[in-house]
Amino acid sequence: MAFESKIKTIEWIGNISRIIDQTLLPYEFKTVDIKTCDEMYSAIKDMLVRGAPAIGIAGVHGMVLAALELGEKIKDKKLFLEELNKKAQYLKSSRPTAVNLMWGVDKQMELAKNINGSIEEIIKNLKANGIKLENEDIEINKRMGDYGASIVPKGAAILTHCNAGALATVGYGTALGVIRSAYAKDPTIKVFADETRPRQQGARLTTWELTQDGIPTTLITDGMCSYFMSKGMIDMVVVGADRIAANGDTANKIGTYTVAIAAKYHNVPFYIAAPLSTIDISIKSGNEIPIEERSHEEVTHINGDWICAKEVNIINPGFDVTPHELITGIITEKGILKPDFKESIKNAFQN
Amino acid sequence: MAFESKIKTIEWIGNISRIIDQTLLPYEFKTVDIKTCDEMYSAIKDMLVRGAPAIGIAGVHGMVLAALELGEKIKDKKLFLEELNKKAQYLKSSRPTAVNLMWGVDKQMELAKNINGSIEEIIKNLKANGIKLENEDIEINKRMGDYGASIVPKGAAILTHCNAGALATVGYGTALGVIRSAYAKDPTIKVFADETRPRQQGARLTTWELTQDGIPTTLITDGMCSYFMSKGMIDMVVVGADRIAANGDTANKIGTYTVAIAAKYHNVPFYIAAPLSTIDISIKSGNEIPIEERSHEEVTHINGDWICAKEVNIINPGFDVTPHELITGIITEKGILKPDFKESIKNAFQN
Repeated sequence: MAFESKIKTIEWIGNISRIIDQTLLPYEFKTVDIKTCDEMYSAIKDMLVRGAPAIGIAGVHGMVLAALELGEKIKDKKLFLEELNKKAQYLKSSRPTAVNLMWGVDKQMELAKNINGSIEEIIKNLKANGIKLENEDIEINKRMGDYGASIVPKGAAILTHCNAGALATVGYGTALGVIRSAYAKDPTIKVFADETRPRQQGARLTTWELTQDGIPTTLITDGMCSYFMSKGMIDMVVVGADRIAANGDTANKIGTYTVAIAAKYHNVPFYIAAPLSTIDISIKSGNEIPIEERSHEEVTHINGDWICAKEVNIINPGFDVTPHELITGIITEKGILKPDFKESIKNAFQN
Repeated sequence: MAFESKIKTIEWIGNISRIIDQTLLPYEFKTVDIKTCDEMYSAIKDMLVRGAPAIGIAGVHGMVLAALELGEKIKDKKLFLEELNKKAQYLKSSRPTAVNLMWGVDKQMELAKNINGSIEEIIKNLKANGIKLENEDIEINKRMGDYGASIVPKGAAILTHCNAGALATVGYGTALGVIRSAYAKDPTIKVFADETRPRQQGARLTTWELTQDGIPTTLITDGMCSYFMSKGMIDMVVVGADRIAANGDTANKIGTYTVAIAAKYHNVPFYIAAPLSTIDISIKSGNEIPIEERSHEEVTHINGDWICAKEVNIINPGFDVTPHELITGIITEKGILKPDFKESIKNAFQN
């Protein structure tokens, strides 16, 4: 049973892409209507829209906007496709490391090239495909949500880390999608949200989107998880993923690994919720996943203010890798994968 | 070998008590000269001075200030002692839960009552005792520091949580005292300081006091410890304590327990540094230590700004209890206590 979330992170309406400006949350809720390819480039670069699946659809929509603009000026189909390809490269340069962005833009460019009809036909098809991919993202999340909800105990308290929610996808979420589906079945479940320093996506985004949907949420600081586990106040952990290796090792927001160790110590089940597209079967183990070093200001500043001595050193890894032996299961749109993950992941890709 | 720290959290000079205003750190370094018993009451209440041992000495100094004021107006000894006793009760009410405050004030009142000489004699003795207790606090820390330094490996990276430093004592520190003594022997050691949300004593106070003393310090967020341990970048953990039970279970700032679990998982030694006065032998285990629930604003606000959705629930335990089985040793002024802690603690109190 799927829960109807009020949150649409990105949505195609008529000839525009409407997105939530996430840089303002939780202080202000504001949607922005993106009308041109240039505006979409800036929205991605300046992180008005963030989260891998959401950025993918932003790329998809950006290509429709580019086609609409070019169609007004260019009547020659060959020239139109050449110019559209330039726009594709431009859009992809807005956040060069986001694989989903490449995926979304390339999918649209491929489609445009393969349409035998007129420029109008191409635009029509790009628009329809954009809406299709947008809906598919939600559908995949809802399937994951249903599988995940089936293993949430009655009245469970679920801990999550960072934001793997509607705001990181088109509109339902991966880890928070599981929580939404569980809540639809059983409104007595509760959520604990880790603040997730340094960027506080748990405090800023997860508490906002869950309370918007009326799901009871308790914010805790990152060091508190063990305390609540030791008191029997947390029944399971569900988090998202940025990249999963073929053996189940999972890269996710920094701090996830610490939660996984605490969960193991207290025998609390620890689940990853992620679509199969997050699993990189070309990578054998987590050792091969590169960890991005991010800006030092994320640690030394909060809301623009210094929080420490200025002479301090900083190392700011954006992600950590949770080894597969700490993971109870991986919730995907094709069911819940269990150890041995090497086997279960291989099977999921074969079927 | 003791390191000479530049930081004197509280110091008796002539007829005043000079304290560092910790509410301004790390943004501004300012000492305040406390000239009256009333001013000391406010300095404790408003947390210009904090940390159990430091508050104890603030109480001691407050009693000298009270005696000096009363001595100017009152010439009858009986009346003087009656009025001094009223000031003692008043000082103790500034932070009713701090045991060290009661200890310091009571020690001075006891002394005053037992002096056979004049009011001037009483004042002279209170002053001398204040300086003695002040120096003893540092001496105990330096002895702990020497014992602790003896087990720090060459070039070690030491992780600490919260602030168990000069700023929590008269001027050397418990966990940070161990680090100072180790640094005096071996200037190649390094420190990792946990931010310690919610109140950020690690970011605000520990990074300030260690960099003031020139000790290389890296600030990390609370969720990062496991990442650095997994990379072999942390060789040991040393933290302070608020209360230790007779079996070694240790209450300390919230988040300590999570660090201890991560240390166990990575086989990183985990030490407590605390004077014997922190061990409460009347308490059998950590289950009997009450955990203070603190203000919700500590979690929802940083530097006065909201950081989350306003509809969120908060639970804010100020401390957690690390079970003795996660503790490698307890560094005290009488040596390093090792498991079985029941035995080693009993022996330390008997010798």
